[in-house]
Amino acid sequence: MAKDLTTVVSSKTKTVEINRNNPTVVIGERINPTGRKKVLAALKEGNFDMVRQDARDQVAAGAHILDVNAGVPGADEPALLKQVMQTVMEVTDVPLCIDTADPEALAAALSVYEGKALVNSVNGEERSLEAVLPLVKEHGAAVIGLCMDDDGIPDSAEARLKVAGKIIERAGKLGIGPEDVVIDPLALTMGADSNAGRVALDTIEMVVREFGVNVTMGASNISFGMPDRKYINATFIAMAIHAGLTCPITNPLVPEVSIAILAADLAMGRDEFGMRWIQAYREREKAAGK
Amino acid sequence: MAKDLTTVVSSKTKTVEINRNNPTVVIGERINPTGRKKVLAALKEGNFDMVRQDARDQVAAGAHILDVNAGVPGADEPALLKQVMQTVMEVTDVPLCIDTADPEALAAALSVYEGKALVNSVNGEERSLEAVLPLVKEHGAAVIGLCMDDDGIPDSAEARLKVAGKIIERAGKLGIGPEDVVIDPLALTMGADSNAGRVALDTIEMVVREFGVNVTMGASNISFGMPDRKYINATFIAMAIHAGLTCPITNPLVPEVSIAILAADLAMGRDEFGMRWIQAYREREKAAGK
Repeated sequence: MAKDLTTVVSSKTKTVEINRNNPTVVIGERINPTGRKKVLAALKEGNFDMVRQDARDQVAAGAHILDVNAGVPGADEPALLKQVMQTVMEVTDVPLCIDTADPEALAAALSVYEGKALVNSVNGEERSLEAVLPLVKEHGAAVIGLCMDDDGIPDSAEARLKVAGKIIERAGKLGIGPEDVVIDPLALTMGADSNAGRVALDTIEMVVREFGVNVTMGASNISFGMPDRKYINATFIAMAIHAGLTCPITNPLVPEVSIAILAADLAMGRDEFGMRWIQAYREREKAAGK
Repeated sequence: MAKDLTTVVSSKTKTVEINRNNPTVVIGERINPTGRKKVLAALKEGNFDMVRQDARDQVAAGAHILDVNAGVPGADEPALLKQVMQTVMEVTDVPLCIDTADPEALAAALSVYEGKALVNSVNGEERSLEAVLPLVKEHGAAVIGLCMDDDGIPDSAEARLKVAGKIIERAGKLGIGPEDVVIDPLALTMGADSNAGRVALDTIEMVVREFGVNVTMGASNISFGMPDRKYINATFIAMAIHAGLTCPITNPLVPEVSIAILAADLAMGRDEFGMRWIQAYREREKAAGK
């Protein structure tokens, strides 16, 4: 059993410590035009109002870190990503997770970011390792490592563990310690493969046992094509927290998911006297006008 | 890692197999006067209408086994327990879980039960082991073993594992195989001890790894004194299923809990193509008149 590591990320004024003994760290996923037509259209027009709104709302709903993605087809991503980040930093003070598949945009974003960012993401593909890890090292950031490589996304948890190990090893060679690598097991769609959830959960357990690193996961994919998705996502996140997930990327505005995360922390003994649970309950009651 | 065992329980006409690769088996907890004044009063008057209703409702809501408790202070428990069981068997055909602390009542109940019952419960106290296990053996039943002994309920998961081992060993000496011992880790109240959930979850994992036995748990205690208990119970059951829980004792009429169990099975890869999830969704929609 590897020792549990602490990943530190920060903004200019705020530090977040991700560790398996702390309450779960929520990375807000909303600032992302993918699949959101209105946001996409607004960004194309240089309108950042929705970005501001999404940033404020997510932090109010409990996000500790905000994921920022500016992947607008046809746009100048380095410039746009910087603008979106600036906008978010103007209205909130939480650390950012810089979400881009474009190394140029990543370099531009890291160069303007004040603090220690979380980079989303590197994977086990040779091309990705070579492009992303040196930037992470240069800027002293932390990085999310996706369990996929040049052969795609492995079917088995054992093979995903191997990819995680490869990423951690390659990062280490550049002087990026395992405490700065956050592994994403990749949760695929259960509608396509009934075992998709199980493989992700098993991967988390194995990665934690072997490396003690922090673990992130986007938990919305899993329920794609199923009815009542929010219940599946909420339950799946709680189970993944039991497996070792420490910083899910999710939408904190979905109450079912936020409640499940708080309940999971309570069940894991990470909420002394249930203070956070009770506080959140009071806020829900207040919001409901009771 | 011990091999996963299968516990078989049955009524005259129905067999339920409890195994970690099958969907979760729900043991309905409602037929129990403890803390239910109306039921208590009705039973005292020999009125079994609520028993019938609770039996039918729970099976309709997905219970696979019904727990039957007739612990009415001052009543003739052997006679009353038999009557309540007869009533339940008249309106449903699922196997029963005979829930009594009175060995005489247990003997009486087992003598009229047709099928293989689940006995709730034995524990590691010398007195309990000596009174209950011979009855379980004599009637070819299965038995729930609570992780407590003459020194009370241990604080640590390690010590609870030891009690589980003792119960399994003592059962084995009488010829009751480990496949017929279902362990209950005991979930205490988190309001009293922030670690109560964690200890129960850890106990489940250890018991499963060591013995491969099936695991039950009453998951309602855990949230006692907290607000919005149903969300805590639902999340905790899902996490316990990930840890290895196979047959929770719960109230299937609480939708949050039933939905979480279905979602947990989906996440564990025990619901091929999500057929059970989709079916339950359709039934919810129908019930809501959509």
